[in-house]
Amino acid sequence: MSLQEQIEQLAKQAREAASVAAQLSTEQKNQLLLAMATALEAQSEHIQAENQKDISASADKLTKAAIDRLTLTPQRIMDMSAGLKEVAALEDPVGTIIKNSTRPNGLKVKKVRIPLGVIGMIYESRPNVTVDAAGLCLKSGNAIILRGGSEAIHSNTCLGNILRAVCTAHDVNPDIIQVVPTTDREAMSILVTQTQYIDLMIPRGGESLMKWMAENSKIPVIKHDKGLCHVFVDEDADLEMAANIAVNAKAQRPGVCNALETLLVHEKIAEQFIPLITGRYQQAGVTVRGDALTQKLGSQVEAASDTDWDEEYLDLIIAIRVVPHINAALEHIRQHGSLHTETIVTNNEKTAQYFLQAADASAVMWNASTRFNDGGQLGLGAEIGISTTKTHAFGPMGLEELTTSKYIVEGTGQIRE
Amino acid sequence: MSLQEQIEQLAKQAREAASVAAQLSTEQKNQLLLAMATALEAQSEHIQAENQKDISASADKLTKAAIDRLTLTPQRIMDMSAGLKEVAALEDPVGTIIKNSTRPNGLKVKKVRIPLGVIGMIYESRPNVTVDAAGLCLKSGNAIILRGGSEAIHSNTCLGNILRAVCTAHDVNPDIIQVVPTTDREAMSILVTQTQYIDLMIPRGGESLMKWMAENSKIPVIKHDKGLCHVFVDEDADLEMAANIAVNAKAQRPGVCNALETLLVHEKIAEQFIPLITGRYQQAGVTVRGDALTQKLGSQVEAASDTDWDEEYLDLIIAIRVVPHINAALEHIRQHGSLHTETIVTNNEKTAQYFLQAADASAVMWNASTRFNDGGQLGLGAEIGISTTKTHAFGPMGLEELTTSKYIVEGTGQIRE
Repeated sequence: MSLQEQIEQLAKQAREAASVAAQLSTEQKNQLLLAMATALEAQSEHIQAENQKDISASADKLTKAAIDRLTLTPQRIMDMSAGLKEVAALEDPVGTIIKNSTRPNGLKVKKVRIPLGVIGMIYESRPNVTVDAAGLCLKSGNAIILRGGSEAIHSNTCLGNILRAVCTAHDVNPDIIQVVPTTDREAMSILVTQTQYIDLMIPRGGESLMKWMAENSKIPVIKHDKGLCHVFVDEDADLEMAANIAVNAKAQRPGVCNALETLLVHEKIAEQFIPLITGRYQQAGVTVRGDALTQKLGSQVEAASDTDWDEEYLDLIIAIRVVPHINAALEHIRQHGSLHTETIVTNNEKTAQYFLQAADASAVMWNASTRFNDGGQLGLGAEIGISTTKTHAFGPMGLEELTTSKYIVEGTGQIRE
Repeated sequence: MSLQEQIEQLAKQAREAASVAAQLSTEQKNQLLLAMATALEAQSEHIQAENQKDISASADKLTKAAIDRLTLTPQRIMDMSAGLKEVAALEDPVGTIIKNSTRPNGLKVKKVRIPLGVIGMIYESRPNVTVDAAGLCLKSGNAIILRGGSEAIHSNTCLGNILRAVCTAHDVNPDIIQVVPTTDREAMSILVTQTQYIDLMIPRGGESLMKWMAENSKIPVIKHDKGLCHVFVDEDADLEMAANIAVNAKAQRPGVCNALETLLVHEKIAEQFIPLITGRYQQAGVTVRGDALTQKLGSQVEAASDTDWDEEYLDLIIAIRVVPHINAALEHIRQHGSLHTETIVTNNEKTAQYFLQAADASAVMWNASTRFNDGGQLGLGAEIGISTTKTHAFGPMGLEELTTSKYIVEGTGQIRE
């Protein structure tokens, strides 16, 4: 079988399995999820052995940090298992009635949540995404095709096989979860043209993957793109609160998309705030790159270049810029932001409301760390990622966002006049 | 200026205007809509004169039906005006709070409807779409770029200019509504790659347009594709009701996407129902193409070929097929349907619920004509079209479906531990 035929068959199998996934009851889905959690724990050693193959193959190619991301420790396997149990405990979105009305002609109209169908997920590095994404797609009644990074092929295939075996043991078509069985990049090109079988592609990774998807996918795409997040410290800010938020948003976990990348400071408070925040960043081990005024007022500030305003450092580096007013801050965000998360720190309610309305992002925050743009923190439960695409799902994508809706219309013979 | 620069500039202007559109109050938007309605009525003669240029240019190229679709009569201009007034009367979706919660850490989390941003609309023939789409996009706080058929360029440009002049007279940036000022097809190719300026493309038209969009658009697309709708007459159907629905769904307005194209008949009632329905179709002037059994049982039935099951006639022609059971009907729908509208006629509630759950379409109906899959009929108000894309909006796309949502998070200095 050619690669083309192989990927087409896989997509076709997913489409057929999608109707099985859609018909599973909540109880069946929860049983599967819990059995999958148990299976992962039981096969922890086997998973680690397969994972070791990936690590050995990558030892001289990847950075230490990348190897760490790739590694499945016993604890991380337990975490994947716990994640599945958590998804089992979440409410099933399928079948929820969103709207309900009776029309003047007596037609009963319901708008009801249904699964999307077949979801293709393309992701890099961390093999835990294989399990997290499969669990969320199963609970939302979808079939999933998983395409992880080539460096994790043994781990992902092994995890996929364990989940599939649980389906088979429960008399459920295992094709509701499929891992693309090759690292051939051509497979991806074939996958993203299977418009008749796949309903949605979710890429999660770096800029080159996003660019590639935008160029090549013929299937609707929801990007989980970079987060170039800002905090704007207004002239009416509580400066101690602002410093706490700016340090937390940057340094608590710098490698994630909702971490802060550029701090914007109102010029009226720059003289007080810049020395305070640069000192705090120094203590936290954060390198500061600033504009001329920040360099003048702060301690140990490197000169920021124009490219710094567009850089997602994902590291203990921050860019700081002083702006003359809130509209300059908003204009900076418009030019450099990535529609992800924007925070204002101020005690002035009017200023805050203006910012919350005008800033274009999936989450806008007032007096809170950007790190709260997260499914768990916002109350959605587990998430498959944070969408920076405005259509369908904007922001954290939980179970509900993995569904769509259809109208169910019940009549007694109504016809149109 | 090159065409490339011209279209890029147009898209960039739309992006800038989108922030204006998003900030308009409900009252401002309604005032604009009503003023636009008045302007259309006042300039009816001018519109007709411009429309006449299109008609003259197309006289020897288009069918009589196509010319009719292109023609703007005084009544049709009044209808466009009435449509804008209707949109003014609809509830403004922008700012609606979808969810509202307070997290254990005190964060107040709201999920709020916001405009999508910039919408690109590509459509064929009827120039009224220019006004309908502009009105709906304005009310939902979006900027719109309109690209109608080349045969309607004078009409569309004229209508766009009238709407834009109303904006200018109200001190609103007229670029919230723009008509692509050229019929050059290359303009479309440039338009669908303006990913940094346009958030969503809505194509409304025939299969070749849909195919072209899927191949070429780098921007998310919501297709308003064909409707290959079915009615399944179950063994437990009230046959008189079934005949009424089947005739209404086919013949009441055959040229629209929610009209019936293929009638599926349970074999247990075929002997009674086929003579009844073929007689009724004859009376209604509908040509019947049927499978062998339909030909045997019915009167004046032409032989259906395999391609008939995939044809959207949009005409007074119907395909009829006898199926052995409901699952065969569902399988036929899976193979030939277009996710649009599927109806079952039955008095058996269990059979009905099975069908309503299993049939994959944006609207599934029980004992009602397929013609009810329509924004107005389902209670959404005016619609921009009926989406056959599962993501974002599936089915009739009204004002709500022209929005997305963002999280607004209010804190008191919360940081993540």
